[in-house]
Amino acid sequence: MAAGPEAAPVAIVCGGGGFPLAVARAAQASGRRVVMLALRGVADPGVEMFPHEWVKLGEVGRFFRILAEREAKELCLVGSFTRPELSELSFDLGAIKRLPDIARMLKGGDDHGLRALAAFFEGEGYTLRGAHEIAPDLLTPAGALGRRKPSSAALEDSKFGLACCAALSPFDVGQAAVVVNGRVVAVEAAEGTDAMLERVARLRAQGRLRLKGAAGVLVKAPKRGQDLRLDLPAAGVDTIQRAAAAGLEGVALAAGQTLTLDRDIMIARADAAGLFLMGVEEDAIEQAKG
Amino acid sequence: MAAGPEAAPVAIVCGGGGFPLAVARAAQASGRRVVMLALRGVADPGVEMFPHEWVKLGEVGRFFRILAEREAKELCLVGSFTRPELSELSFDLGAIKRLPDIARMLKGGDDHGLRALAAFFEGEGYTLRGAHEIAPDLLTPAGALGRRKPSSAALEDSKFGLACCAALSPFDVGQAAVVVNGRVVAVEAAEGTDAMLERVARLRAQGRLRLKGAAGVLVKAPKRGQDLRLDLPAAGVDTIQRAAAAGLEGVALAAGQTLTLDRDIMIARADAAGLFLMGVEEDAIEQAKG
Repeated sequence: MAAGPEAAPVAIVCGGGGFPLAVARAAQASGRRVVMLALRGVADPGVEMFPHEWVKLGEVGRFFRILAEREAKELCLVGSFTRPELSELSFDLGAIKRLPDIARMLKGGDDHGLRALAAFFEGEGYTLRGAHEIAPDLLTPAGALGRRKPSSAALEDSKFGLACCAALSPFDVGQAAVVVNGRVVAVEAAEGTDAMLERVARLRAQGRLRLKGAAGVLVKAPKRGQDLRLDLPAAGVDTIQRAAAAGLEGVALAAGQTLTLDRDIMIARADAAGLFLMGVEEDAIEQAKG
Repeated sequence: MAAGPEAAPVAIVCGGGGFPLAVARAAQASGRRVVMLALRGVADPGVEMFPHEWVKLGEVGRFFRILAEREAKELCLVGSFTRPELSELSFDLGAIKRLPDIARMLKGGDDHGLRALAAFFEGEGYTLRGAHEIAPDLLTPAGALGRRKPSSAALEDSKFGLACCAALSPFDVGQAAVVVNGRVVAVEAAEGTDAMLERVARLRAQGRLRLKGAAGVLVKAPKRGQDLRLDLPAAGVDTIQRAAAAGLEGVALAAGQTLTLDRDIMIARADAAGLFLMGVEEDAIEQAKG
């Protein structure tokens, strides 16, 4: 390959969890070089398997110097991240110069902060890439992925849940919900998908949701109008485990708009637990929204 | 008073918690006779302070015989209630005769089950009354109820939260949400308000919501188009305690469309904790919805 933009590495800004590692592996597998910009105290130590640099939150000047040294012009933000308090940041000179931009990113809903972050990097001359652009194999394909097929009740629940998530989009919340027999029993906000699934498991254990056998669906989809480069909903092996623990019938993910990490293991676990795992196609989602 | 409909008692069908007792007290204070139809295993033993009969879930024939004996033609459903499994009901003959109606009430979202219940009682010739009709003093008045006034940020958060709840109405979910600095951090579904507030407290304790000092608002409002006779959102002393534990700035309730139980104690606790307690007027709610 010639020294085109493809020869330059993509910088993966690493939040927490295994997601940045999966993206890096998939990017390398597709022939792309990577450099991990690992946020100290946040990123998984596994980032050190890849070319990497550790950066403290607030070392904005150093961050841009590393990008220049590595000749990276593309950035991809991946992994879990709790927005810090201003007081927790170790500002360097590069940060001080950009304080008004930084203050803007610390306010408002998730999307608001992320959009400000995107504008910030683009203003500095970098191109923001979604995880799905540098690791397209991680995108959830359409259809039933494992052995179990969804029941017609589960398909109805999936559509209802997707419509509910869409209705919440203007409020910068709701990438996931749990629907059981036509009833939305949980809506995800700041707690995240795992905590929401634990809640459903608890409600069932307490007898506050009384259901016989496996019932209900976890649905995940991006917020309507969301910039997919910034916060693509993801599911992994844990998602399947927790969905099984919550007694659900299966998991329905927006096909081509969500990421599945360690998909083979997810499918194996779903098969073992008797859950379906499904990518819901755009058409079905649009119908549900309408 | 002559032997008009007012002389007949209103039958309060008692779910769990102190709410049926507060409604009975307020109804009696306004000159209304009551009879408590206490659901066994569900209703608070305190119902025995009032004229009462204990009824098992499923004793539908007996339920209607008691109403006839007591000459009650008006019913008011109050208190917490977990929809039972069909198998948990102790059916008598009166229930067997009405099985198709009962099956209908055990399916779908909360509203769906409640609407079926209302239609069922009306079909039997009874009039369903809302708690607010027989105990109007329990309705939340408009304006700041305690010493603390909401900040302008809290007012913005309240409007945003009310609009979010309204958007969720078609999905038969979302009588409450917590909004902090323009961000919806929790949406209530099957877990109820208390569990939602505990979640917010936990997210703050875990550092997953990082906020300095008191911030954010609990908002409660009825679902749009909801039959207020069936499921009026309520707040009580516990609500204030949990809102304080979650580090909120205050509580905003739809004025005239939510109930406040033991309001004097609520106000005292809110004052002591430095929280505002506010009834948000219809105009503000409609603006927020639009």
